[in-house]
Amino acid sequence: MSIVVVGSVALDSVETPFGRVENALGGSATYFSVAASFFTMGIKLVGIVGDDFPQEHVDFLHSRGVDLTGLECAIGKTFYWRGRYGDNLNVAETLSTELNVFEEFVPKLPESYRNAKHVFLANINPELQMDVLRQMEDVELVVCDTMNLWISERRAELLETIKHVDIFVLNDAEARQLMGEFNLNKAAKRILDYGPSRVIIKKGEHGSVTSTRTSYFSSPAYPLENIVDPTGAGDTFAGGFLGYLASTGDLSESNVRKAIVYGTVLASFNVEDFSLNRQRSLTRAEIEARFDEMRAITEF
Amino acid sequence: MSIVVVGSVALDSVETPFGRVENALGGSATYFSVAASFFTMGIKLVGIVGDDFPQEHVDFLHSRGVDLTGLECAIGKTFYWRGRYGDNLNVAETLSTELNVFEEFVPKLPESYRNAKHVFLANINPELQMDVLRQMEDVELVVCDTMNLWISERRAELLETIKHVDIFVLNDAEARQLMGEFNLNKAAKRILDYGPSRVIIKKGEHGSVTSTRTSYFSSPAYPLENIVDPTGAGDTFAGGFLGYLASTGDLSESNVRKAIVYGTVLASFNVEDFSLNRQRSLTRAEIEARFDEMRAITEF
Repeated sequence: MSIVVVGSVALDSVETPFGRVENALGGSATYFSVAASFFTMGIKLVGIVGDDFPQEHVDFLHSRGVDLTGLECAIGKTFYWRGRYGDNLNVAETLSTELNVFEEFVPKLPESYRNAKHVFLANINPELQMDVLRQMEDVELVVCDTMNLWISERRAELLETIKHVDIFVLNDAEARQLMGEFNLNKAAKRILDYGPSRVIIKKGEHGSVTSTRTSYFSSPAYPLENIVDPTGAGDTFAGGFLGYLASTGDLSESNVRKAIVYGTVLASFNVEDFSLNRQRSLTRAEIEARFDEMRAITEF
Repeated sequence: MSIVVVGSVALDSVETPFGRVENALGGSATYFSVAASFFTMGIKLVGIVGDDFPQEHVDFLHSRGVDLTGLECAIGKTFYWRGRYGDNLNVAETLSTELNVFEEFVPKLPESYRNAKHVFLANINPELQMDVLRQMEDVELVVCDTMNLWISERRAELLETIKHVDIFVLNDAEARQLMGEFNLNKAAKRILDYGPSRVIIKKGEHGSVTSTRTSYFSSPAYPLENIVDPTGAGDTFAGGFLGYLASTGDLSESNVRKAIVYGTVLASFNVEDFSLNRQRSLTRAEIEARFDEMRAITEF
């Protein structure tokens, strides 16, 4: 079952207490696509890069089976983010953001993308997220992320967009900011009043909680002792989550819970190395082993 | 199976966004004892109060079956804590601490306490915690808590005490502070090197994680929308935990996990009202219902 993903494809320079990388592959659509590719074919990426974007990254995405028909290559430089993490790896400090060709990005879906059944709207401007939805003809499941910038600068547009969203994925700070409510369980309930049938609140090292009007599920993070770079963990989570859901076509509560655990497992691998380096050697057997461990560490 | 608990018995004035109380019943030994009393008889409290301590509180503890032979009544005022919580109910701001009669407290176990099989050393000076252990003749399970004050001012003594502890219970900030290590999983492993066979790290709204050398268990908090006063949650957790363990006499991994979930459930009730007010009407049936819910919100 195919998945359209719209978001950034970027070059990142990241520094953490455990090392640094310069101009490494990054971007929300990239992390999502690669994670989803462990579960399903038919991942159709919509994004933009500049003419400096290395061919090796294109080749890597092709090797993961990602359809790049919708990846526009424009004259100019690729979206660039430079950030740093301290000992508290939960919070990134942005040192510079150069939108470059991403600044004028208007997502345009190729004809071959329009009948996809699933879509992931990564954390772009909510007006562009709506543009993407309007171009889809037969979508059955809309999953959407956001970020603090849009909550502060495009709150009304974001609240309009999530009326059309089935599953809204955001982190704890964003949920609190969006609803002006410190209690996450209250914030989740209030988000559901705006339209989504499910909200997933990501809490970094503390895992995630997901609520519908009638259910609640709490998943821990996979316990790691060595986290090298948390960049992309949220989009990797979303990719593992929606990749598994799309591969099974089963939206039951129990299968959604499994999908959340698969997303959690994919995110745990992602943070073990910079950029998407860990994913280059990751196997399905390693994923299944951690999935089983997740059950072992939560059962009582 | 009897449990000795040594800690504070206090009068607390607490202000939260949801109200306030003045001179309400509090103290680590109090919260622990009342929580444990839902699972087992034979809770033997060691502590000190002043001559201002209201008889109604003594009567309440007696009504819960708590043995107060070891509660010393001294001339002077009872330990008094005044604190405030903001919207972030995870962090208390201490406005004043008056040790009063607690300042000269030297725990002395009555003869009838000395052969108890279980002991909970609440967050008192680690040298006093050792004094208590020396007075016990036949103890089989030592559970110990601490606090930031002792980590900064009595670190060596604390590390000496935990050599003699089976299960060390502390919160995430304390674990990080004690080991100088931000990663909680690493901090937990390092704590185990000092002697305890198990460490339980409490994370407030994010639940708890527990590690031994060979096992790991993550429990969420019970999801609440209305938290009135978090005071005493940690000691209530410990009371539910050890009360259940003592009542079953089963230290298997699976039973320890159940005990952690019972502790979590007890703590969830505690924070729904000021002081120990919620516990006054709490029933075992309510506890069991939440225990079952904990399973329903974690299973996948």
